[in-house]
Amino acid sequence: MPSKPLRHSFIAATPAFAAGRDTPRAFLELCLEQIEAREKDVLAFVETAIPAARSAADAATARWRENRQLSSIDGMPIGVKDVIETADMATGKGSPLFTGWQSGWDSASVKALREAGALILGKTVTTEFAASVPGPTRNPHDLTRTPGGSSSGSAAGVAAGFFSAGLGTQVVGSIVRPSSFCGVYGYKPSLGGINRGGSHDYMSQSCQGVLAASLADVWQTAIEIVARTGGDPGYPGIVGPMTLPEAKAPRRLVFLETPGWGAVSAPLKAAFEGTLARLRAAGIEIVGRANAAEVAEVEAAICEALPVTRDINGWESIWPLNIYSERDASKLSPQMRDRLKESLAMRPDDYRRCLARRAAIRALYARLAEGADGCIALSATGPAPVGLLSTGDPSFAVPGSLLGVPALSLPLLSEGGLPVGVQLLGFEQQDAALFAIAGAVERIVTGEAVAGG
Amino acid sequence: MPSKPLRHSFIAATPAFAAGRDTPRAFLELCLEQIEAREKDVLAFVETAIPAARSAADAATARWRENRQLSSIDGMPIGVKDVIETADMATGKGSPLFTGWQSGWDSASVKALREAGALILGKTVTTEFAASVPGPTRNPHDLTRTPGGSSSGSAAGVAAGFFSAGLGTQVVGSIVRPSSFCGVYGYKPSLGGINRGGSHDYMSQSCQGVLAASLADVWQTAIEIVARTGGDPGYPGIVGPMTLPEAKAPRRLVFLETPGWGAVSAPLKAAFEGTLARLRAAGIEIVGRANAAEVAEVEAAICEALPVTRDINGWESIWPLNIYSERDASKLSPQMRDRLKESLAMRPDDYRRCLARRAAIRALYARLAEGADGCIALSATGPAPVGLLSTGDPSFAVPGSLLGVPALSLPLLSEGGLPVGVQLLGFEQQDAALFAIAGAVERIVTGEAVAGG
Repeated sequence: MPSKPLRHSFIAATPAFAAGRDTPRAFLELCLEQIEAREKDVLAFVETAIPAARSAADAATARWRENRQLSSIDGMPIGVKDVIETADMATGKGSPLFTGWQSGWDSASVKALREAGALILGKTVTTEFAASVPGPTRNPHDLTRTPGGSSSGSAAGVAAGFFSAGLGTQVVGSIVRPSSFCGVYGYKPSLGGINRGGSHDYMSQSCQGVLAASLADVWQTAIEIVARTGGDPGYPGIVGPMTLPEAKAPRRLVFLETPGWGAVSAPLKAAFEGTLARLRAAGIEIVGRANAAEVAEVEAAICEALPVTRDINGWESIWPLNIYSERDASKLSPQMRDRLKESLAMRPDDYRRCLARRAAIRALYARLAEGADGCIALSATGPAPVGLLSTGDPSFAVPGSLLGVPALSLPLLSEGGLPVGVQLLGFEQQDAALFAIAGAVERIVTGEAVAGG
Repeated sequence: MPSKPLRHSFIAATPAFAAGRDTPRAFLELCLEQIEAREKDVLAFVETAIPAARSAADAATARWRENRQLSSIDGMPIGVKDVIETADMATGKGSPLFTGWQSGWDSASVKALREAGALILGKTVTTEFAASVPGPTRNPHDLTRTPGGSSSGSAAGVAAGFFSAGLGTQVVGSIVRPSSFCGVYGYKPSLGGINRGGSHDYMSQSCQGVLAASLADVWQTAIEIVARTGGDPGYPGIVGPMTLPEAKAPRRLVFLETPGWGAVSAPLKAAFEGTLARLRAAGIEIVGRANAAEVAEVEAAICEALPVTRDINGWESIWPLNIYSERDASKLSPQMRDRLKESLAMRPDDYRRCLARRAAIRALYARLAEGADGCIALSATGPAPVGLLSTGDPSFAVPGSLLGVPALSLPLLSEGGLPVGVQLLGFEQQDAALFAIAGAVERIVTGEAVAGG
């Protein structure tokens, strides 16, 4: 088991492709070697399309050689969370009700990725309907531990060097949490940032996002999708430059404890406070609940993030859970059946109250933008817990989901040799600014220029 | 050809069901007689499920007899636009790419209707992907004329007495226009009013709505759906009482000419002005562009409704039209292929400018609520035109779509013996108030209490 993950940044390799010193086909073979060596243990994939990926990599190689590459991700190997439809592979949604189910069509994001030349290497394991009940995937850093969920296979696959980027989705903590547990870069965009067409991913605060080997791989994958297919209907989609926004140190960051802080170990708290100290030493002001009333107010409000999210998601998933349950309730997990039962007790007015509460919390949070450039927090309460039956605590990830703001998890910390992410939260539809901050934070914290960054 | 349509209000019949003088099964048989007599000419259906509907009607009959009906629409025969999925019938989306395609699942609305006891009698003809290219349906009032589109079969089926209510969708004029042409009641809710889950109906200003035999049938169908499955995720859904809101005369209505007025014939203008005169005589103040600057400003802005809508829909339908085109472009209409080609020339920033313009027009319109209770306009520039190759002019319907506000078409006018609707537009998420106004307007204009109203 490697102590350092084998993240394969495709973007870092593109200068070598352009110079003719490396090729997308050779890059793919490195990924396939890792898959050959470790997939039997990691179990990141539901299905792969390796022969098709090799052909596509050869085509990309020819285009790079002739300087007519389709995009900066032409030839990038990508894993697609198995709630997102692909024309050539089944979309099992992590449920026995959909095992082998073929929509026959590519999702909006997959279609855009193929147009950009990316290789769709396989479908990655998701929890049941991207909710709580895990699939078989194990954490590449320690096979006895969960990779987190629900974007389990995309996170583990990036961490194990199987592909450079994975598509994920998040409605509670499904990108930020597995990114933290697997030590990869994870990005949940602003509400509506990436077109969700053709994905089992219909809840109002759910987003499609990207988990990848570097900040540059994350951004490039996301922006290439959005340039071709936009965000969700009615949303501007991620707005920003066609390459990673230039690093720009923030003037002031808000340190958000979130409801998760109480569960963090003393050593991890100390490590995170060390990160804040480095940022302060670099001239970034850090404000927190103790020295800013508006932060204290947000901290109090986001304590409701999990229960409000739970009720919103519950109401919004009555359909299709009701039709699934009617078809064959025995193929839903007991947790899912209980969930449906609880949700069926809700009335439209209960849901409307939750929407109103969410809007009020969003408005409170938005006021922080007057005095700060973004927020910083942990991505999880600690490293991935031992065991595969739970995907872990989402306390740190759920506020960003409820708020609808962009969230990034950067693999900057560790505890007991296992990765833990530092989370940056931005303001709605200001995703590029968050990436600029993230670039600066990463450089300050690691004290080095970052590969692919 | 009957000069008066055979609209079958189910709600008007429910007192007789409750009293044991009539039954849902007998009601269904009346509908089936009309289908038997006229479907060969009207061609409203893509597919029917008559044996299942008869069984369901018997079950509903037993429940009414035992006073344990599931809802006020228990036993109501319903037609479902063929972009909305049904577990027991195919969903052809008006496209040869989907002929016979079975999703295998009920949409959110169909599931809710079945829970309420409604009979899903069949799938009704839609234009290609609910856009412009018509199916075979003819107008029951004159078989040489279009029923309008895209909810062609639902409108024609209600008009011909085949069912009491039809589900439709509208993103340009697809409920209001066919309702006007076929002389039925049509309702496009506020943005997000009815859950669109499981429907090919993904655009940002698209809504699922109801076309029916009376105002009461419209409301009851819509509210029974929303009580069980809500609106779109993130929206409150239609808010209001569990039976038709009580009629309440507005204090002041805005007369909106809309871009369509110039195309209206002198006799129809006179008829509409007669309607306004009756409303004035009943004490309702009518203001228009000539005597209110804020109305003139809205009139100027909604001249952009059609081009802005066209661009928004164009960008939002790049996916999935691109995957359809890639699969088999010969199965897309030439119009659809041209449309895709135009849309592919758009950039994300073009789309963002359209969204910003739409938001600005919505804000202008919303200000009218300060001084008025709603707006009144025609539903179409005239009766259904002769010919089946075009679904007619959407000028009057598109403002309500762009604005995201509730729109109702009431079959109160005629020209040359053919129906024309009067359209009422409300304010966003104030759907029940619009129904209250509509009840009053209908009584004043017809001078009578209305069956089922």
